[in-house]
Amino acid sequence: MLKRFLVPEADQVLVSEDDARAATATIFRKMGMPDDDADTATDVLITSDLRGCESHGVSNMLRAYVHQYSAEIINPRPDVKVLRDSPVAASWDADRGLGIQVGPRAMQTAIDKANETGMGAVAVQNCGHVGMLAYYALMAIPSDMIGICMVSAGGGLQVPLWGTEPVFGTHPIAWGAPTNKMPPFVFDVATTQVAANKLMLTRRIDSNLEPGWITGLDGAPIMEAVDSPDYGGFFMLPFGGTRENGGHKGTGFAAIVDIMAGILSGNKAGFMADRNMHSQFVMAMKVEAFIDAIEFKSDLDALLERISSMTPIEGQDRVYYAGLLEHEETAKRKAHGIPYHREVVEWFNKTSNDLNLGFSLP
Amino acid sequence: MLKRFLVPEADQVLVSEDDARAATATIFRKMGMPDDDADTATDVLITSDLRGCESHGVSNMLRAYVHQYSAEIINPRPDVKVLRDSPVAASWDADRGLGIQVGPRAMQTAIDKANETGMGAVAVQNCGHVGMLAYYALMAIPSDMIGICMVSAGGGLQVPLWGTEPVFGTHPIAWGAPTNKMPPFVFDVATTQVAANKLMLTRRIDSNLEPGWITGLDGAPIMEAVDSPDYGGFFMLPFGGTRENGGHKGTGFAAIVDIMAGILSGNKAGFMADRNMHSQFVMAMKVEAFIDAIEFKSDLDALLERISSMTPIEGQDRVYYAGLLEHEETAKRKAHGIPYHREVVEWFNKTSNDLNLGFSLP
Repeated sequence: MLKRFLVPEADQVLVSEDDARAATATIFRKMGMPDDDADTATDVLITSDLRGCESHGVSNMLRAYVHQYSAEIINPRPDVKVLRDSPVAASWDADRGLGIQVGPRAMQTAIDKANETGMGAVAVQNCGHVGMLAYYALMAIPSDMIGICMVSAGGGLQVPLWGTEPVFGTHPIAWGAPTNKMPPFVFDVATTQVAANKLMLTRRIDSNLEPGWITGLDGAPIMEAVDSPDYGGFFMLPFGGTRENGGHKGTGFAAIVDIMAGILSGNKAGFMADRNMHSQFVMAMKVEAFIDAIEFKSDLDALLERISSMTPIEGQDRVYYAGLLEHEETAKRKAHGIPYHREVVEWFNKTSNDLNLGFSLP
Repeated sequence: MLKRFLVPEADQVLVSEDDARAATATIFRKMGMPDDDADTATDVLITSDLRGCESHGVSNMLRAYVHQYSAEIINPRPDVKVLRDSPVAASWDADRGLGIQVGPRAMQTAIDKANETGMGAVAVQNCGHVGMLAYYALMAIPSDMIGICMVSAGGGLQVPLWGTEPVFGTHPIAWGAPTNKMPPFVFDVATTQVAANKLMLTRRIDSNLEPGWITGLDGAPIMEAVDSPDYGGFFMLPFGGTRENGGHKGTGFAAIVDIMAGILSGNKAGFMADRNMHSQFVMAMKVEAFIDAIEFKSDLDALLERISSMTPIEGQDRVYYAGLLEHEETAKRKAHGIPYHREVVEWFNKTSNDLNLGFSLP
């Protein structure tokens, strides 16, 4: 994550992983989630916070979920329906359950299928927010599988390259693969220049946006550094930004996400779907279906070691690969606590008071 | 394709599809390929030229293949070995056959597997150049399948973001999906800022490279417009180019390609593999394993129509999606001929003379 997205030290309150988990799960149970599901959804959020991906942790998301439960937009006890099922593939209707509640079940099903056949994929329609996609990719890794996740999340944010109207959300993609000794490869990116949540984060921490990240409401790229406007006051550019830097590639990957998650699940492309209902595609591929897992993992170690041990260009401290910094951050935060913005801790404690939950974070 | 890559009109010679096919297949047969394989390899090259992807058609590639056959780097009659095989997955050793000869067989096998089970994937090690990846994605479309292809092609060209040494080739990715009435979605991109072949094309047509496309041999990004240096005189940046424009995403996708094609096939990551031996991952997913194909295709039509019918930003004529321009170009070139550079036609005729092949292009 770029430095601009980190909470300034003066505003940080360190909260232990256990305290953060307990408080979050208590809130989910209060919203009506079954105990097991509350623990699952909590694990998705706290894993994000441990990895330093605060844009998808409790800071930005938990209060949004609480609002969605109050407004009855999402269903805390979904009756998930299997629409199609075979030894390698399935499609599900999540019955308006939160993505971080139903998604891990879908990925587990993909893993179980891959365990039997070599490959498994599940497309899920009609779910709420899916959280940090790296979570699903990570789930596959202990089984020596490659994990893939894509999410079609609305259609009102991202313009196609050269377009004047949005058709996509941030439409992220994650891909993970197991290693022997190096931290695993875990790639998780928005197909926009940045995740939308991160735009909002810049406001809490008094930072700004780069040229070529967003457009005005006429679709024209804003090519100077600006403060983040409110939701509704901008559209986002595909990654690359301009044609010369590969903006058409960002648009292409956004379309792929809409195809794999939105259309394949039956949720339809983001711009046609119910704006609160996202869709998800998860897939697991067993390495042993192609090659010995030990050989695969040691060859991947060699690639990742090559990348992360080379001399960086002038002005940079190191060269890294996807998942490396997040792995290091997790170790730090597990030891020393998660650095939440004091406003987030205040929100937790106010929520505990308002809803009579009986916890208080330090 | 950017205009800078097109052959200037004054240098164009229009050659009919049939004449180009006949000449190309004659050369492949002369190189020792079996008749069927020569037709397959020809189809990959001529399909590239018809789609306007001349960087991967006969202009750049055929003379390189002829050189590789003469130097006995590639094997015209490979004995392809099946290393692993299951109902959903396989890995093959291509026995140093050209990728455009063995790759289509691998994709057909993936399609056959997907027809039986819902999904099929084949990882191929030890093959020569794989050609235009869109070809493999296109193969899946008539069977109402999603087609995917990735190729790990060497390790001496692309630096990871902020790195000073190359570890990847151009490491392209293709993804195709079927439609009812719109031209199909066919995405095919290098994970570098541009395909390496296109750098060389700029020299034939007296054009230049954009800032942030390449680096010097010290890995430092070259941030002004320059003439293309020779192979060996530059490295390439991942798509996005800079961190702010998503260069880490380009690096991540390049690593994914090395994982799926290079490491999963046993060819190893590009930087560890034999420099002339590439690897390929192909996959087919049957739409009906998830949803009715008719619903899928009509929902995809809606997305593609939405994108391609919207008003473009000022300065652009239209908004397009991956595969649209190539589809239109194919119709034009099938009707009017393929506009080759006159040097390419001269090379064909010289080769015909030198090898006693008996053809002569107009």
